[in-house]
Amino acid sequence: MLPQSIENFIRLFAKLPAIGPRQATRLAFYLLRQGKSAVQELDHALASLGRLETCSQCFFPYEPRAPHNEQANLCTICADPARTKNVIAIVEKETDLLSLEKTKTFRGRYLILGDLARDGILEPTQKLRLKSLMTFIEKEVGGKAEEVLIALNPTTAGDIGADILKEQLKSHAKKITRLGRGLPTGGEIEFADEDTLGGALENRK
Amino acid sequence: MLPQSIENFIRLFAKLPAIGPRQATRLAFYLLRQGKSAVQELDHALASLGRLETCSQCFFPYEPRAPHNEQANLCTICADPARTKNVIAIVEKETDLLSLEKTKTFRGRYLILGDLARDGILEPTQKLRLKSLMTFIEKEVGGKAEEVLIALNPTTAGDIGADILKEQLKSHAKKITRLGRGLPTGGEIEFADEDTLGGALENRK
Repeated sequence: MLPQSIENFIRLFAKLPAIGPRQATRLAFYLLRQGKSAVQELDHALASLGRLETCSQCFFPYEPRAPHNEQANLCTICADPARTKNVIAIVEKETDLLSLEKTKTFRGRYLILGDLARDGILEPTQKLRLKSLMTFIEKEVGGKAEEVLIALNPTTAGDIGADILKEQLKSHAKKITRLGRGLPTGGEIEFADEDTLGGALENRK
Repeated sequence: MLPQSIENFIRLFAKLPAIGPRQATRLAFYLLRQGKSAVQELDHALASLGRLETCSQCFFPYEPRAPHNEQANLCTICADPARTKNVIAIVEKETDLLSLEKTKTFRGRYLILGDLARDGILEPTQKLRLKSLMTFIEKEVGGKAEEVLIALNPTTAGDIGADILKEQLKSHAKKITRLGRGLPTGGEIEFADEDTLGGALENRK
């Protein structure tokens, strides 16, 4: 008895992360209540999202530009001549890149690796991306980057992934670093676990 | 530095219920990772949602049909001659209608009133919908429905709203009912509040 369009909407939206069938159903009726122009606006937003391309260097999305542009297949970071080519941060997700950008202290490039598997072992697409980074280092910065910052989460999977990346990249970087461990701002010593506190002691200054 | 299309997507989707800016951001990148055809599929689902019409009788959405059809502006329930016109359930939301339909025991029609205000007082659009129900009862069932079931939540707002509806509809229905109160299936007597248990005692059989 539910209109086909609603059934279809629920089926597709229920598959999105953190949206189940219940939430998708509510969303459908919420949107219908908002009226056609609100739905159209979302529709256009979704359509233009679908027109984005993926940067051939770092795999971050970008608005497609005119094809005669030399840097036509690069994102704004990779196309920015002011950003050091010599320092590359490897992140799991686009949102990790955004978090690092918000600090406004990192002026290098990125490589988005994609979500790590639970065991931290690289998957075939991740190996390909790593290969493309090595090719970039060989072609653009003479075979050895100044620094590769492995910005993976301080978790077991992140640690395993980082070890693999270090091993793979050892001949392609003068320095391979990870994000420092320590107390998060606002955190309390009393509640910090041993690993965190150990990291904080090590990184004291 | 975020592509305009992503900014735009986040801005719009963050406004949807239970989706904040964080969740909208994650959703954007999730969709981009799924690839263009997945985004297009969602886009089409959203577009066809936008083409739905609202039933002129009960305000539930329906797929638009050919205009020469006599029941062109009715939903499948209101267009179904097998459903009693004489019994009408008033619900707040479309999802409440769906929940009642799932029981497969109600064979009447509906009126979707729209979300009640916190104080339960009817808003102008709700008054208009109530008026349209009265007109329906006058034209289609001779001025007095067999029963109007006020299927509002058993909450303070629902109780106030129900009292208002009862007062307004008293000359338009032979019988005005509300959903029975009692123990929910699977519930435990020990944890039932007094009101629930009082209702269960009253409705014992």
